[in-house]
Amino acid sequence: MEGYKAPQRDAMFVTHELLNYQDHYQKLGFDEASEDLVSAIFAEAAKFSENVLAPINASGDEEGCKWVDGEVTTPKGFKEAYQTYVDGGWPGMSHPEEFGGQALPYSLSSIIAEWFSGANHSWAMYPGLSQGCMATIKAHGSELLQQMFLEKLVSGEWTGTMCLTEAHCGSDLGMLKCRAEPQEDGTYSLTGTKIFISAGEHDMSENIVHIVLARLPDAPEGTKGISLFVVPKFNVSEEGEKQDRNAVACGSIEHKMGIKASATCVINFDGAKGYLIGPPNRGLNCMFTFMNTARIGTGLEGLASSEAAFQGALRYAKDRIQFRSLTGRKNPEGPADPIIVHPDVRRMLLTQKAFAEGNRALAAYCMQLVDVTLYGSDEAEKQLADAKLAFFNPYCKSVLN
Amino acid sequence: MEGYKAPQRDAMFVTHELLNYQDHYQKLGFDEASEDLVSAIFAEAAKFSENVLAPINASGDEEGCKWVDGEVTTPKGFKEAYQTYVDGGWPGMSHPEEFGGQALPYSLSSIIAEWFSGANHSWAMYPGLSQGCMATIKAHGSELLQQMFLEKLVSGEWTGTMCLTEAHCGSDLGMLKCRAEPQEDGTYSLTGTKIFISAGEHDMSENIVHIVLARLPDAPEGTKGISLFVVPKFNVSEEGEKQDRNAVACGSIEHKMGIKASATCVINFDGAKGYLIGPPNRGLNCMFTFMNTARIGTGLEGLASSEAAFQGALRYAKDRIQFRSLTGRKNPEGPADPIIVHPDVRRMLLTQKAFAEGNRALAAYCMQLVDVTLYGSDEAEKQLADAKLAFFNPYCKSVLN
Repeated sequence: MEGYKAPQRDAMFVTHELLNYQDHYQKLGFDEASEDLVSAIFAEAAKFSENVLAPINASGDEEGCKWVDGEVTTPKGFKEAYQTYVDGGWPGMSHPEEFGGQALPYSLSSIIAEWFSGANHSWAMYPGLSQGCMATIKAHGSELLQQMFLEKLVSGEWTGTMCLTEAHCGSDLGMLKCRAEPQEDGTYSLTGTKIFISAGEHDMSENIVHIVLARLPDAPEGTKGISLFVVPKFNVSEEGEKQDRNAVACGSIEHKMGIKASATCVINFDGAKGYLIGPPNRGLNCMFTFMNTARIGTGLEGLASSEAAFQGALRYAKDRIQFRSLTGRKNPEGPADPIIVHPDVRRMLLTQKAFAEGNRALAAYCMQLVDVTLYGSDEAEKQLADAKLAFFNPYCKSVLN
Repeated sequence: MEGYKAPQRDAMFVTHELLNYQDHYQKLGFDEASEDLVSAIFAEAAKFSENVLAPINASGDEEGCKWVDGEVTTPKGFKEAYQTYVDGGWPGMSHPEEFGGQALPYSLSSIIAEWFSGANHSWAMYPGLSQGCMATIKAHGSELLQQMFLEKLVSGEWTGTMCLTEAHCGSDLGMLKCRAEPQEDGTYSLTGTKIFISAGEHDMSENIVHIVLARLPDAPEGTKGISLFVVPKFNVSEEGEKQDRNAVACGSIEHKMGIKASATCVINFDGAKGYLIGPPNRGLNCMFTFMNTARIGTGLEGLASSEAAFQGALRYAKDRIQFRSLTGRKNPEGPADPIIVHPDVRRMLLTQKAFAEGNRALAAYCMQLVDVTLYGSDEAEKQLADAKLAFFNPYCKSVLN
């Protein structure tokens, strides 16, 4: 949004004064993630949010995405902003060095993800979905699949999606119908239609890697018969090179209030070539590995909106003049005082500020616990962190969203 | 909205069982407003809402209003729906018989105003503003002005607006700048720009009558120097015939979320001919006459939205199948049960229903009090009603909106 300022100061306060991230990172072996480095990363992320993403938020919303014959064009400036994001090395910040990432902690890339979303929610949806895609392939994909897909995803040359929902099943995934037929070469042929696929099709990256829930022919009914597949828009060689077009097509884009510049797609798989990830019929279990990070990710979008709303309201309250202060003129040269002088306006602004800052602290606390579950070596501590997340994280998701 | 059903049964319950409107109307001399007549009027209003307004709600929102060179075109079907409304005699339902109205109680036309708004909020804004315009001219206009304007407004051939806000003053009307210069013929020449004028320009009626707040040349500063004027789009003879175009023009239309089919206008007065209503410098006092009905009118829009949202949610909850009921299959032939079987979905639906029905009762109670203030003959009862409104009405406005 116009005039957005990334909340660097509050993020440093929450992480380094309130929650002692410095010791936390040291303990988990992230020696390089010093307070100075974190502060420098925050400064760069703030610049990117404020100078690159915020200026194309309103124009992007007005222009929206365009769908023509299966191709989606993002609004003016979106592609260029994505290239700047890739050039800055942001996509792979918390991913392994062996695939070109920077191997920094999960919490660090997540704190700044709020700012990208606050500056431009629509834009932030595109790289946001890649994170889940990469994590899925890293956790459950074979060595070959990791080799085929991860490097280009980590560099940001390719983006990813998560294809779960079908028209007749959103929450009740046990009913899903998308089929995966085994082929002689060990791959699968996927057929079916998915809806509400964020970043399902766009012009910002050269390939799109879909993580797809589907059923094998002999699968049991319900949630115990769902498997997980990776299905690229363009086929990929074993060496990870982009090849011919796969049978994946975008049927249309949805109209979603507030994120018109984000392509939420209907994706048709028409005998598309895919690869099994994880064990057959255990797809939902594999997906649940990411329940904590997915919840925090959703919560961060709500936090981002509340921070952006507070900033917009604060600017307006300082600029708009209307009536005089109860305690005497505060803007004697003008015909009225800025409305921030009025007690009830201040009350509303402080409520917004308290929500944004309180929820940022809660999110940072949950992220810290996730770090422990991901990188910790003490099994008891990991279990404790997981138990705490089971309590705090649904709250984090629902309050912030 | 698609599939909207006017809440006739609940309105009859609230007015005739809970609040005893039959005795109330009798007591105020509205002998003809029997339970049967009210019920018949409700049935006709329901048909109009459901069959005429609801079907053009979504299409109207998609198409929106178009502004070209000062002319505003409303979406397909809006003009025809307005003609049906006029043919049905709805505009003058609660206005005096001497101007062609039906002289029915205020509360009766207000209860059904909720339904028009629930079926099609955008459309309901056009005739809605006429009510305030008519009431202002009736209460404060000279006999000549009443003769010039009221008949065509009451019949609905013309519509009206209320022009208060300017870019630099919304709540703090003391700062308003629109000027009115007295002319030799006793009229005034108005110059200035008003914003956020609902139904300020459109193609549904042959003339538009603006009620405008402006300052006389010798007016004191602040709210004690504001006068009220009537300024028609087309000039009007003393006999009430439409004449040449007045210097009133629509500069642009605003983008307002959720009411894209309602023309919210910037209106420029460029030496436009106007007529003073009420005493000089007492314009705000004249406007405050309608504070109670204006508050209820605003509250009804919120009530309409909550009823429409409940109906939409209820339809979806009965139609959408997802998961099985905790107490055993309710839709054994289907792959899942409708989501209305789930306790938390029922809780949410019942919360919506309680808000809509509770607030409808509160609104009907406030309208009953307004009836007493408008038509009562016992001065003590009128004062009591006014005192009760001072307590309940701000609540009615803020809870419902």
